[in-house]
Amino acid sequence: MVTATSEYDDDITVTPVDDGVYDADLPAGWSVGGGINGGFLLGVIGSALREELAGKPHPVSVSAYYLSASTAGAAQVRTQVKRNGGGLSTAAAELWQGDQLRITALATYGDLSTLGADVRTSAEEPHLPDRDQCVSNQHAPEHVRAMAPMMERFDMLFHPEQIGWAVGQPSGRGEISAWFRLKDRDPDPLSLLSTVDLLPPVTFDLGMPGWAPTIELTAHVRAVPAPGWLKVRHATRNLAGGMFEEDCEVWDSAGRLVAQSRQLARVPRT
Amino acid sequence: MVTATSEYDDDITVTPVDDGVYDADLPAGWSVGGGINGGFLLGVIGSALREELAGKPHPVSVSAYYLSASTAGAAQVRTQVKRNGGGLSTAAAELWQGDQLRITALATYGDLSTLGADVRTSAEEPHLPDRDQCVSNQHAPEHVRAMAPMMERFDMLFHPEQIGWAVGQPSGRGEISAWFRLKDRDPDPLSLLSTVDLLPPVTFDLGMPGWAPTIELTAHVRAVPAPGWLKVRHATRNLAGGMFEEDCEVWDSAGRLVAQSRQLARVPRT
Repeated sequence: MVTATSEYDDDITVTPVDDGVYDADLPAGWSVGGGINGGFLLGVIGSALREELAGKPHPVSVSAYYLSASTAGAAQVRTQVKRNGGGLSTAAAELWQGDQLRITALATYGDLSTLGADVRTSAEEPHLPDRDQCVSNQHAPEHVRAMAPMMERFDMLFHPEQIGWAVGQPSGRGEISAWFRLKDRDPDPLSLLSTVDLLPPVTFDLGMPGWAPTIELTAHVRAVPAPGWLKVRHATRNLAGGMFEEDCEVWDSAGRLVAQSRQLARVPRT
Repeated sequence: MVTATSEYDDDITVTPVDDGVYDADLPAGWSVGGGINGGFLLGVIGSALREELAGKPHPVSVSAYYLSASTAGAAQVRTQVKRNGGGLSTAAAELWQGDQLRITALATYGDLSTLGADVRTSAEEPHLPDRDQCVSNQHAPEHVRAMAPMMERFDMLFHPEQIGWAVGQPSGRGEISAWFRLKDRDPDPLSLLSTVDLLPPVTFDLGMPGWAPTIELTAHVRAVPAPGWLKVRHATRNLAGGMFEEDCEVWDSAGRLVAQSRQLARVPRT
């Protein structure tokens, strides 16, 4: 087991109890509304897979299907290795609470630090004003913070032109971006699995408040992030038939695109 | 079983042989290079899941991890239902050949025809010249057609400004788009699973010829496609560390975005 060095590491720590089986405890501190945040849960699953796939320290791709809402308390991650390769290994993982299957997932792990240094990107880093010009999650009203205790776990500084929804004036563009850091530690490939699903649903910016349940989320971790603040941006381009896709990008302090994710989610009921 | 009405339907047909287990036969006609095309394999897996998840006729989301290259001949799809819900059902599926696991996948099915008619999209339909201005796959040189027999299964009319790679002049932009139709039938949600992975690798347009093995591919089917020609476009924005993401969109003849996919693949070895 990795020695915990921060609140986040403590919270995602799992304990092996049987072959491929790990106990976890989902802290109420990561709840939002009635459930536990899906990005945090991806971190817990990722933590178990990191133990199981020894020698492959980093998630490269993780695909999770969310079947029911997780609640604070005991949980279990059950893993099954599908293929141990030279560079990459692939496994299935399921998050259970009692007899309820919460998430079923597939993942490929490897060692991102061994990849080549070639970078050829046409993706553009999100433009964010200086941090002191952005709107901090710490300024959220008391009732919002009570509804989303997870907001105490990180600093999130919103682009001031993309936070109108917080005062009833959504931009209608379907885009939210923010500076981001965990409270007490630098990012690593595993924490990026959580980072891609911590922004408020992009539907807020379309004037649709409320919980947007994830059906499926796939995250690709593209590089080991440099220490420091991250830029996180997500957006949707197609809301239809009660569903929307949400594409998220995470850029590190060195200006590198370190994670990409897409999720398919349900439009909030209004 | 669905009665086959076209070559594609014939080719993806599976036969139930045990609880959740389906035999398939992978036709050499869908090979490209030494292996069977990954999009076609997704159609085979999708076909088995459609049998298994009776009452949920359409794939909504499918995530596949490609573990080894499939070859022509006998194969088996082994499925396991994870959750049968009212509107959506989720299952795991694996494609085996002998004792070799080729693909492990997760999928959610539903009935896309029951979804609401709301569409709110900022995605823009790919611009393609009229079909008689595009470059047909039927004009490919004999040795290319011999290497990729699957090209006989469909019509693919390439954007003339994105086909320079075929004559040694890749644009360097990392984008390929084309008109598309199966030879003898209209598209449906299941055939879209194949459609998202039939274009040549987008790395061709970056001047990197060769096979680009898929690590992971997730496809979201967003609507039942209208009959007629499809527009298919894929692109990459970030090639780094020997991997690249490839985002594909499929638009139907009614101008609707009917499928989105993203895959993480390895850069071809040169």
